[in-house]
Amino acid sequence: MSFQLKILGSNSAMPAYGRHHSAQLLNVQNHHFLIDCGEATQIQLSRYKCKTLRINHIFISHLHGDHYLGLMGLIFTMHLLRRKSDLYIFGQKGLREIITTQLKYSDTILNYNIRFKELNPNEPELLFEDNTIEVSSFPLFHRVPCCGFLFKEKSKPVRLNKDKLPQKISLAHIGLLKKGEDIYDDQGKLLHRNKDLTLPPRKSRSYAYCSDTKYEESIIPHIKGVDLLYHEATFLNEREMWASQTFHSTTSQAAEIAKKANVGQLVIGHYSARYNDVTPFLTEAKAVFNNTILATEGEAIDIPDL
Amino acid sequence: MSFQLKILGSNSAMPAYGRHHSAQLLNVQNHHFLIDCGEATQIQLSRYKCKTLRINHIFISHLHGDHYLGLMGLIFTMHLLRRKSDLYIFGQKGLREIITTQLKYSDTILNYNIRFKELNPNEPELLFEDNTIEVSSFPLFHRVPCCGFLFKEKSKPVRLNKDKLPQKISLAHIGLLKKGEDIYDDQGKLLHRNKDLTLPPRKSRSYAYCSDTKYEESIIPHIKGVDLLYHEATFLNEREMWASQTFHSTTSQAAEIAKKANVGQLVIGHYSARYNDVTPFLTEAKAVFNNTILATEGEAIDIPDL
Repeated sequence: MSFQLKILGSNSAMPAYGRHHSAQLLNVQNHHFLIDCGEATQIQLSRYKCKTLRINHIFISHLHGDHYLGLMGLIFTMHLLRRKSDLYIFGQKGLREIITTQLKYSDTILNYNIRFKELNPNEPELLFEDNTIEVSSFPLFHRVPCCGFLFKEKSKPVRLNKDKLPQKISLAHIGLLKKGEDIYDDQGKLLHRNKDLTLPPRKSRSYAYCSDTKYEESIIPHIKGVDLLYHEATFLNEREMWASQTFHSTTSQAAEIAKKANVGQLVIGHYSARYNDVTPFLTEAKAVFNNTILATEGEAIDIPDL
Repeated sequence: MSFQLKILGSNSAMPAYGRHHSAQLLNVQNHHFLIDCGEATQIQLSRYKCKTLRINHIFISHLHGDHYLGLMGLIFTMHLLRRKSDLYIFGQKGLREIITTQLKYSDTILNYNIRFKELNPNEPELLFEDNTIEVSSFPLFHRVPCCGFLFKEKSKPVRLNKDKLPQKISLAHIGLLKKGEDIYDDQGKLLHRNKDLTLPPRKSRSYAYCSDTKYEESIIPHIKGVDLLYHEATFLNEREMWASQTFHSTTSQAAEIAKKANVGQLVIGHYSARYNDVTPFLTEAKAVFNNTILATEGEAIDIPDL
């Protein structure tokens, strides 16, 4: 089952050097979650062959333009593509007004419903869950209310060990095995221990997204041990003071958070437009947390199903 | 002196096949007028080496997303580029609210002032003038209030004919000649007829922009005889009925307007995303009005200074 992050935009406030505003597409099993939606996200989706209408949930971390200005265009395009199903949008207070104001003046009644959910920028909160995944938000520390997002697969069932299964076993018994139960006959006599016929469940994978934030250790409990962490690294270390003043992070700060949170892998992005070559970002971050990669538009990062 | 139109976006509602939402940059002498500003216009400006901060006047024809969704990103980028001078934005009722709502939620106080001017979608109106040019709006006929724009150089002064000028002539007399006056001596005796020492003024050039409109002959008086007309041609002739229902035009309709308005050259664009190859647009339009060209992103159309 897939758990894949695709980078659609990797730059910060101004597009530059072919890099775009923040946007990511996370595919977890049958879900396609859009995370932030900077200007031209619909163009990036199309460029990288992502099917726009598969997106049912959009998570906008905060209301700085480089994180949401592509949303209105995407909403209109979904309408033109004759979307019918509900679209769930999670964003800070104000996003609903921004969208409805523009729908009003364009005199558009969408073919589909938008379900808004206002984020709580002060407390972690469960935003969505189903049988396979839960998505929650947690506070980040930026100049305006801002949330990070945590995507976490739910606990998975044990797996049938086909090498060990008896040739004749009823569907009812298979159902019990999948639920982790032992199997008894009608008289209550133990027929099979569950652990003898099953393999342990696959690992529940997780991804955390920290869009815009200053270095802040209080986010660590929310992202502890995730398989993959995206943490913004707007500036190289040389501009640590400027990063602090603008509520952004440096490469080493992002890596320090990754190290302290004991994550599997770190991906950094949200590069300032002042940098043409971003390879020094990688060098600096790897010096603190070696398993770091750069956010590169069009590239996908897979978390294997182990 | 330059009079150059640069095409930044040529497609209609949805970006497709590498074509973007509507946007054009008109350079007339020292002015750089941005006409419509669809999503990703700031990226297109950068791609085609247009200097963003030279733009002081932005004209938005109507409030459908493909004509203005790039505006907010451009406003933020001008702020980040430390713009100081006033920015004049001409748009339909609602545009000011759309912009101020987003500035409010991003908690941004711009370094510069935006001067809004609300368009009158029902009557032609002078929007801007200085010594060299006047810009006016006129009604188009679309699903929402929509204006076209006319850019027209003012009458130019006569030009000194250097081959005919006497070797000794005072600056005062040169000033009089440039004003078109004859020259007399102190006793009131005619020294030089103006027409003997000057050449006729250069032609005042003009450009009209008709963004989104159904076929409507009442726009002809506003665009009569312009050197260059942009008229939308969203569909090929095969979809004339659909064009009419959606308040758009076909290739032949755009060309018919150009012919009836006796314009110098027609440029068509605003292609529907249903068409990959747009060469049939040119064939159809040229059958009605031969001096037609296709809007092609990154290409410039010059009106010579004759």
